[in-house]
Amino acid sequence: MKTLLRSSIPSVAKWVRHTQTATTVLGEPLQPSMCGTFPGPKSKQMKVEMDLHHQAASVKVFINYEKSKGNYFIDADGNVLLDVYMQISSLPLGYNHPDLTKAVSDPRFMATAVSRPALGSFPPTFFTNAIKNSLSSIAPKGCTGVQNALCGSSSNENAIKAAFMWYQAQKRGGSPPTKEDLDSCMRHELPGTPNLSVLSFNGSFHGRTLTALSITHSKAIHKVDLPAFRWPVAEFPRYKYPLEKNVPYNEQQDQECLANVEQLIKKWKEMKHDVAAVIVEPIQGEGGDNHGSPDFFQGLRDITAKYGVVFIVDEVQTGGGGTGTFWAHDSWNLSSSPDIVVFAKKLMVSGYFYADHLQMKEPYRIYNTWLGDPTKVILLEKALQVIERDNLLEQTRRVGKALQSRLRQIESVNNSKMRNVRGLGTFCAFDMPDTATRDKFLEIAGNNGLFIGGCGEVTVRFRPALIFGDKHLEIALDIITKSLSEL
Amino acid sequence: MKTLLRSSIPSVAKWVRHTQTATTVLGEPLQPSMCGTFPGPKSKQMKVEMDLHHQAASVKVFINYEKSKGNYFIDADGNVLLDVYMQISSLPLGYNHPDLTKAVSDPRFMATAVSRPALGSFPPTFFTNAIKNSLSSIAPKGCTGVQNALCGSSSNENAIKAAFMWYQAQKRGGSPPTKEDLDSCMRHELPGTPNLSVLSFNGSFHGRTLTALSITHSKAIHKVDLPAFRWPVAEFPRYKYPLEKNVPYNEQQDQECLANVEQLIKKWKEMKHDVAAVIVEPIQGEGGDNHGSPDFFQGLRDITAKYGVVFIVDEVQTGGGGTGTFWAHDSWNLSSSPDIVVFAKKLMVSGYFYADHLQMKEPYRIYNTWLGDPTKVILLEKALQVIERDNLLEQTRRVGKALQSRLRQIESVNNSKMRNVRGLGTFCAFDMPDTATRDKFLEIAGNNGLFIGGCGEVTVRFRPALIFGDKHLEIALDIITKSLSEL
Repeated sequence: MKTLLRSSIPSVAKWVRHTQTATTVLGEPLQPSMCGTFPGPKSKQMKVEMDLHHQAASVKVFINYEKSKGNYFIDADGNVLLDVYMQISSLPLGYNHPDLTKAVSDPRFMATAVSRPALGSFPPTFFTNAIKNSLSSIAPKGCTGVQNALCGSSSNENAIKAAFMWYQAQKRGGSPPTKEDLDSCMRHELPGTPNLSVLSFNGSFHGRTLTALSITHSKAIHKVDLPAFRWPVAEFPRYKYPLEKNVPYNEQQDQECLANVEQLIKKWKEMKHDVAAVIVEPIQGEGGDNHGSPDFFQGLRDITAKYGVVFIVDEVQTGGGGTGTFWAHDSWNLSSSPDIVVFAKKLMVSGYFYADHLQMKEPYRIYNTWLGDPTKVILLEKALQVIERDNLLEQTRRVGKALQSRLRQIESVNNSKMRNVRGLGTFCAFDMPDTATRDKFLEIAGNNGLFIGGCGEVTVRFRPALIFGDKHLEIALDIITKSLSEL
Repeated sequence: MKTLLRSSIPSVAKWVRHTQTATTVLGEPLQPSMCGTFPGPKSKQMKVEMDLHHQAASVKVFINYEKSKGNYFIDADGNVLLDVYMQISSLPLGYNHPDLTKAVSDPRFMATAVSRPALGSFPPTFFTNAIKNSLSSIAPKGCTGVQNALCGSSSNENAIKAAFMWYQAQKRGGSPPTKEDLDSCMRHELPGTPNLSVLSFNGSFHGRTLTALSITHSKAIHKVDLPAFRWPVAEFPRYKYPLEKNVPYNEQQDQECLANVEQLIKKWKEMKHDVAAVIVEPIQGEGGDNHGSPDFFQGLRDITAKYGVVFIVDEVQTGGGGTGTFWAHDSWNLSSSPDIVVFAKKLMVSGYFYADHLQMKEPYRIYNTWLGDPTKVILLEKALQVIERDNLLEQTRRVGKALQSRLRQIESVNNSKMRNVRGLGTFCAFDMPDTATRDKFLEIAGNNGLFIGGCGEVTVRFRPALIFGDKHLEIALDIITKSLSEL
């Protein structure tokens, strides 16, 4: 009866039901409300004061986290904004979700918050169960082992280290390092310190350690003045939109980029600087929301398998449900899984999943004092229960589909200002004519109560939480339309 | 009257008073209690199970963090050990300190635990005050600005980045990067991607990212199979003990090592790979508790100043009070302060302090999505109140002095097994004849209820919490004596 009733609810009724639930449960505001310009004078003053004590050059606005709720944050000046950027795509359930707040008083949370374990050597007795209930339960197909780390950059660092170690072990027929390896690495000499490389793509972003920056090619200000590993960089596809009207061009992009990858792997092998790993994002989320097609990624999987190169998929920004599934690469239907999948941000925990052959055999090779934070695992455990209970992935797919189609409608009547609408789930984006226009648009949207992000040179990106529902979509689209008209 | 009375309390009465307070307030066990071997069968079984889900090659023992208290942990098998290693020197107040537990229900903690800020762009409204009450209040002399990060490795990465950026800006007369710099860095070419280097020391440990490993020279297993920046490595003093009987030899060590540093800086400048920074630990805490003298560090300060090289002191392990002051380098009385001081571990928060000239002017150059964790700042704020209220630095100096003098007594009757007792505060160590003997000693001590760490090839290191008092000292020394006799 209940099932019948539920399936007979028309979509409008469903929409109302969902909205009411969200408002009640999350206690969030009904709409944005602005006291003045954004950011306001209090935020500006706070930035000046912060800079006297802690570096604040990149600070945009101060947020009252205690008062923020659901999809809305409240800033230092009392402005209430609908947030579709969510701390750079890193809050799965928005602000102060009541179920997560309850998790803070879990005795496991309390104890490991105040007595933080050195996780690699002295894990809590509850740790394996918590991992099974959280990360293991959403492990990508074929990558069922997991390693915790502390942020996206350190996860990529460790993933790359694991790839190098495996590559060298393969050369030794699977054996551990020899005495000659161990002795020579202390002098940074061959064979212990090998000349290996990682292939990355133009437009990529993998983090900000010197190694992560060596494989990052999105913005110069991140890289300038810093030494780098000079490793091979391949071209990433740049599609024309709408995709369905540009099939031959886009297929050619895939083929050219794949040929470029294979040629670089061969060339660097000849140069005795073997490519040990290829690292790629499903969507280049900092470089401008550049998408690759399933065919492109299948091609990468084939080439890496052919040359014995570790295939690392960096899902730091795409992972965690925003694309409508926990992993963006699920949509590629690869013939065999990636070797490593890296995560952080929306999963609250960071680290990497690995295929069996990348399991560490020797201790202290992938290690760090903290190595992670069990309190974040406990939060993720709870968040996954909420995501399942509230059907948030399904909601993200449904709302994401509506978001894209409605953005296309807006694009059709604003095509001098807005183009190339694209996305997966609510992980959506569109381009504007130039950087100045895009930046102005972001500013106007903020003043109208919508907090939304930019990426690349000309792109506007949506990164809402998984609790972003139909009502929030309507408000966001209204503000976008209004802001475009004010440009 | 009260003052008079207090000053007339004899030292034994003081000892009793302190012990009673600690036991009552912290609710910790009165002594170790062992159910069987350490680690026990449950820990061993848990490790096998964990390895099926999360890498566990380095796991030593599973700890029941909910039940552990004060200076004692309880493991999965119910063994209760006195812990003088404290999660690799990273718990300032031991396990489940009641004041820290209270801080978890602070609304600021709750909100930012479940809605984690992207700290570099959207800090909480309370953030600057929390920083003023915590890190700023213990800022090293001359380094009053601070930058948060996520662990010791990422703090060193960011410190080194700041040094490189400053070094290049100096070459430009203080100006920001030029268009040529910005363009060329995207191709990893000069001048945007400079050939700069960091000078480090043999025996050092600065972390495990590829860059941190390039300046780490303690254990081969950390470095092997990984590409590295091939930068200059200088000799670090290796003193003979007791210091007072080896003055000329040790002074010569200082002079030779300083000459080595200066020669390398000159040589690398000639090679057009300028040394932009020198990084050094006050005590090489992983490399074997190798100390440097105040004269040695003053010499380093002079040489770095002479050549315009950034002087980075890595206090990740020494910082936070274990040496009897918040910063080990306080004891050097330098003529001018270091340029950067790096911290993590016992401070719960990680990052680096910097002198004014290293303040970032441009946004997004030192950055990361999370960039830190405000909940840890709130814990530190509370921990500093406790350290002051309970006079824990004074206690650490007093107990540390007793620890060293009593260890020397034990050494004098065990000099075939134990030598080179040394330390600062409770940050103490001694050497054993060889690795096998040292490892056996650590195992016996564990079975006798004392959890203590090793470092370097032959060293035993003490890293107790700041709540380590006279009573704990007596128990630790009893177990050490017993364990030596069982060797």
